[in-house]
Amino acid sequence: MTDENTVANDGWVSYRPDIKVLDCTIRDGGLTTDHNFDDEMVKKIYDTLVAAGVDYMEIGYKSSKEIYSKDQFGDWKHCDEDSIRRIMDDNPSDMKISVMADAERTNYKTDIIPKDDSVIDCVRVACYIHQIPLAIDMVKDATDKGYEALLQLMAVSTVNTNDLEKALEIVARSDASAVYIVDSFGSLYSEQVRNLTKLYLKAMEGAGKDVGFHGHNNMQLAFANTIESIVSGGNRMDATISGIGRGAGNCPLELLMGFLHNPKFKIRPVLEACQDIFKPLSETVDWGYSIPYAITGQLNQHPREAIKWRAGDAPDAYVPFYDKIMEQE
Amino acid sequence: MTDENTVANDGWVSYRPDIKVLDCTIRDGGLTTDHNFDDEMVKKIYDTLVAAGVDYMEIGYKSSKEIYSKDQFGDWKHCDEDSIRRIMDDNPSDMKISVMADAERTNYKTDIIPKDDSVIDCVRVACYIHQIPLAIDMVKDATDKGYEALLQLMAVSTVNTNDLEKALEIVARSDASAVYIVDSFGSLYSEQVRNLTKLYLKAMEGAGKDVGFHGHNNMQLAFANTIESIVSGGNRMDATISGIGRGAGNCPLELLMGFLHNPKFKIRPVLEACQDIFKPLSETVDWGYSIPYAITGQLNQHPREAIKWRAGDAPDAYVPFYDKIMEQE
Repeated sequence: MTDENTVANDGWVSYRPDIKVLDCTIRDGGLTTDHNFDDEMVKKIYDTLVAAGVDYMEIGYKSSKEIYSKDQFGDWKHCDEDSIRRIMDDNPSDMKISVMADAERTNYKTDIIPKDDSVIDCVRVACYIHQIPLAIDMVKDATDKGYEALLQLMAVSTVNTNDLEKALEIVARSDASAVYIVDSFGSLYSEQVRNLTKLYLKAMEGAGKDVGFHGHNNMQLAFANTIESIVSGGNRMDATISGIGRGAGNCPLELLMGFLHNPKFKIRPVLEACQDIFKPLSETVDWGYSIPYAITGQLNQHPREAIKWRAGDAPDAYVPFYDKIMEQE
Repeated sequence: MTDENTVANDGWVSYRPDIKVLDCTIRDGGLTTDHNFDDEMVKKIYDTLVAAGVDYMEIGYKSSKEIYSKDQFGDWKHCDEDSIRRIMDDNPSDMKISVMADAERTNYKTDIIPKDDSVIDCVRVACYIHQIPLAIDMVKDATDKGYEALLQLMAVSTVNTNDLEKALEIVARSDASAVYIVDSFGSLYSEQVRNLTKLYLKAMEGAGKDVGFHGHNNMQLAFANTIESIVSGGNRMDATISGIGRGAGNCPLELLMGFLHNPKFKIRPVLEACQDIFKPLSETVDWGYSIPYAITGQLNQHPREAIKWRAGDAPDAYVPFYDKIMEQE
């Protein structure tokens, strides 16, 4: 259809084989349903991701059962071995299974069992900047037990650059195989993502660690920022099917698949899941871009006020929400 | 709320006073309703844009009444002087009024009257690459009559780079005050927008012409690409309220307002229009991102097949649409 020699033909036409995609549909998407997804759905997602050639499936949290009771949360808040095996037995595929372990909300010493006894391949430790020492201990615990460990430093848009550089020095000395730039508030513009990716890459130089990006779609920039991080040298990218995730959601896997030209990735199974699972789900569960999320994103604020507003009586009363937020600034 | 010395503090914190925003809510948004918007709505949009500090309001097309009859299309397909004056009298505001004149679909010699008799300030000529000679004549006609003229070279993602360079040389010698990069198919990635903006700027060097960008949101990149073009040196940016526009729509004005830190721009009136006009309108009119548009965007195709599919019986049957489009490739 298009001419071979068009202006469209530049860098994106090629692909970098080292780019690894982590799908966090069930983990981040689970935040919209208190991690209550039925087995049939989780199985379909697993099959979809295997067929799509995704590298990692992040299936949920490894959260403390004291803080998050089994009565109040679905199985994907705790990711017990038998829950995961109900879905995939011993996971006969090449896709790695990842769980998220939140600093101060995970009994990691006891709840993360030795890798030899587990179907899980990878533990992603999530922390805020002040929790870095704890997170590093969690990374060590996971790698000592035989897992790959990833580090997810959240809310980077609120972190002082000097503190960030110090934190990254510590991370570079750790056993984590990758560290993620996490735009928790969906407030980063592409220039910032470019600068952060370069800062992280520089800090990881010689340490043999990848840099990743986890975006939120408050300003319709999750996909754009993911591309920006890739172009700047990031190799680990997060996405979710239909962009499901907390608040404004994440980078849509179906868009990322269209951008990554590595032939191992397939978009059709993802479109099928969008059509059969997520379009129907979107009738009852609220996620994705809307103006209250754009407002908190623009102001570099946690989306919690916007999430509350969207769940309230007048989710589309944008001006009262804007006035309320501006008053609190 | 956020620390003064965060990683967030870089280039975007400042602003360039020369950036001019053109709102094409009524013009591009009109493509969703055959240009049937009632006067009350158009008046509200006019008031909104004046209050928001927008530089140009593109109120519609100056289309041929033989090709597009008055019976079948609303007033904003033809933009007669008395239609515009019903909305704004002589336009007492500082905001400029723009109309679009499509090459081969406009009787420009007769239908565009001398500027002294018109409430219109600016004629934006839209053309494909093969229509450049005609477009240049239309630009001359408009400037001879006393208008500012802008040039909108459509579907640039399908244009051979050599042809584009030659076209831009011709444009540089014309009387147009700005030339726009137009991502008609919503298929450009930010790298491409960056390269195109630089190519256009280089071609306009010494000619005293601005470069602009008009995006479509097929891959959720309209806002991101608009920012990219700004950062690369573009000064003329298009947007529409709530992103209304043909197919996947355009760059949302409310997001662009949040990015532009020039204090002359105000976001609150735009949020009010989103809430009072466009949220209700979205219940009956289909525009904005959806997967069929993403698919045509990824394939650098005109969105017409996706528009037809979205208007059909099964707008959310993504896999049959994908299979159909792939078969035609």
